[in-house]
Amino acid sequence: MLSEFDIIRTCFEQQGLAATPGDSVIRGIGDDCALIKVPANKMLAFSMDTLVADIHFPAAAAPELIASRALAVNLSDLAATAAKPLVFTLGLTIPEASQPWLEAFAAGLKAMATEFNCYLIGGDMSRGPLTVTIQVQGLVDDGLAILRDGARPGDRVYMTESLGCAALALLMFKGKLGNVLPQEREIMNNAFYKPEPRIGVALALARFVSAGIDISDGLLADLGHICEQSKCSARLNLSRIPLHPLMEKYLGREAGLTKALSAGDDYELILTVSAANEPLFLEAAGMLPEKVVCIGEITEPDAAHAVSCVDESGKVVSSTLTGSGGYMHFQGDD
Amino acid sequence: MLSEFDIIRTCFEQQGLAATPGDSVIRGIGDDCALIKVPANKMLAFSMDTLVADIHFPAAAAPELIASRALAVNLSDLAATAAKPLVFTLGLTIPEASQPWLEAFAAGLKAMATEFNCYLIGGDMSRGPLTVTIQVQGLVDDGLAILRDGARPGDRVYMTESLGCAALALLMFKGKLGNVLPQEREIMNNAFYKPEPRIGVALALARFVSAGIDISDGLLADLGHICEQSKCSARLNLSRIPLHPLMEKYLGREAGLTKALSAGDDYELILTVSAANEPLFLEAAGMLPEKVVCIGEITEPDAAHAVSCVDESGKVVSSTLTGSGGYMHFQGDD
Repeated sequence: MLSEFDIIRTCFEQQGLAATPGDSVIRGIGDDCALIKVPANKMLAFSMDTLVADIHFPAAAAPELIASRALAVNLSDLAATAAKPLVFTLGLTIPEASQPWLEAFAAGLKAMATEFNCYLIGGDMSRGPLTVTIQVQGLVDDGLAILRDGARPGDRVYMTESLGCAALALLMFKGKLGNVLPQEREIMNNAFYKPEPRIGVALALARFVSAGIDISDGLLADLGHICEQSKCSARLNLSRIPLHPLMEKYLGREAGLTKALSAGDDYELILTVSAANEPLFLEAAGMLPEKVVCIGEITEPDAAHAVSCVDESGKVVSSTLTGSGGYMHFQGDD
Repeated sequence: MLSEFDIIRTCFEQQGLAATPGDSVIRGIGDDCALIKVPANKMLAFSMDTLVADIHFPAAAAPELIASRALAVNLSDLAATAAKPLVFTLGLTIPEASQPWLEAFAAGLKAMATEFNCYLIGGDMSRGPLTVTIQVQGLVDDGLAILRDGARPGDRVYMTESLGCAALALLMFKGKLGNVLPQEREIMNNAFYKPEPRIGVALALARFVSAGIDISDGLLADLGHICEQSKCSARLNLSRIPLHPLMEKYLGREAGLTKALSAGDDYELILTVSAANEPLFLEAAGMLPEKVVCIGEITEPDAAHAVSCVDESGKVVSSTLTGSGGYMHFQGDD
């Protein structure tokens, strides 16, 4: 059997996944620590996410898909902060060091790493239950980080399209959708395993935004995090939520929306924008390939910093005050 | 049951474990990313280590000991690079969210964090098999990082005292030492669960050192890493190895040495020093509370960048060319 060192070298370094030393990367893989330089006018942003087999993904999933999801959900945190991806570290725990599995895993990482120009700079590999921990590091200009605590009453709430496809994928994995067309299966698979970190959107719009977050726990829960940290509340206009067409097809608009509002894993961005910045925001957003839609507004805080949902007539139909939202694990009961 | 967010807040933030915002820490726990500034004349060093239950520690070990070991082995990587600890992130996977377990775990982290002034800045918590991943971030002055590739033939090889106590602890855990005195048990427990990261030694001696590494895989293996990356070989004088007195007591000098040379987990530093720098190195080392002893020298490279061991008469008694070294897992067979 290959040693730990051989495995790391063969599967990760030699597949072109390792960060190339340069202005920022002083030392990559192979020493006790990696070393990087951060320009004087920038901050280093970092985020760590762990994916556990049979909690966050099926253990039997294709290794390249596990890898792409693990890196994508981390890159999404950089997007939520408007940080440009720089390097990542990988803590990989695997039951056995299977060369084909590791090569496929590395290939999945490589594809995502190449797309976002974010390469491997170190980590650790252990034997044990399949678990993938990634920490991404990114650079953000001083003063331009998108944070959760900057939303103010009157700000508009925007999100990138669309909501619900990852939740639908979970239903499909559990065999609850019946017959699914091959092209639909691919769309849902990609939504779950290759969510698109909205780096480009965030970098283009950061200067016009008052607060933001990525949707990992669910739209209601994550907008709730903004409300809590910004000490305000929010009102969502349900008719404006960009529900994914497949969710609408399989569950219908109402049931699909109910599901999508509290389901995580979509990794779209929520961005809040002041009325004053909205024209510039919309002008910049109009140049992007991604669609960014207004779904509500930030309001004066109620006691619970709650998110209320209103229908087309403006009538409140639900509120997180009465309990909803939150993240649904893969092993969840529905 | 507490939600993920409640748990993190209660057990980690409110126990004084969270990094305080300041010149370096712009944002700590609670946003999508943590944000830090790195001074213009410094580099950020980082290292990630994963500890898996029943591989790297017994699953039933006291949570505060699991925590202290997890942070210590990471801080030791900063020591090996001569980086001053700054902040750490924690990826914790636990089978169930037990409040007492988490509080004890947080207390163990807090004690080590306080000692080394390195606080929590973010992370992720999941349900799953018990696994602890920590990434430490530290600051190192430009040009003063200790690396593995700077050793040159003629350099002396030094190490901090002492070797073998962690390996002896593993034998004790397996019941192979027979009756052990309570104070000996404590010494061995501490060697395994609270190894002392040699941060002070590294910061004091970095400017005189040509290369270095911490002993996590074993003295032979880790000196081998220096040889490989510095493209040289090394000769160890066995009579000079500072074998831990308890190892000598329980296994005898020869068997104890054989065991200790290939056992990991001691987290002492190996430092190489040129003859020209040796007087200043020794002067600085003499001011430290820790003992640093010369155990051999770097030699011209042989084909395998091997580490040879010689006895007092200078006779070669073993060599990594013939196979030895390496890391022994907790579940290992001896």
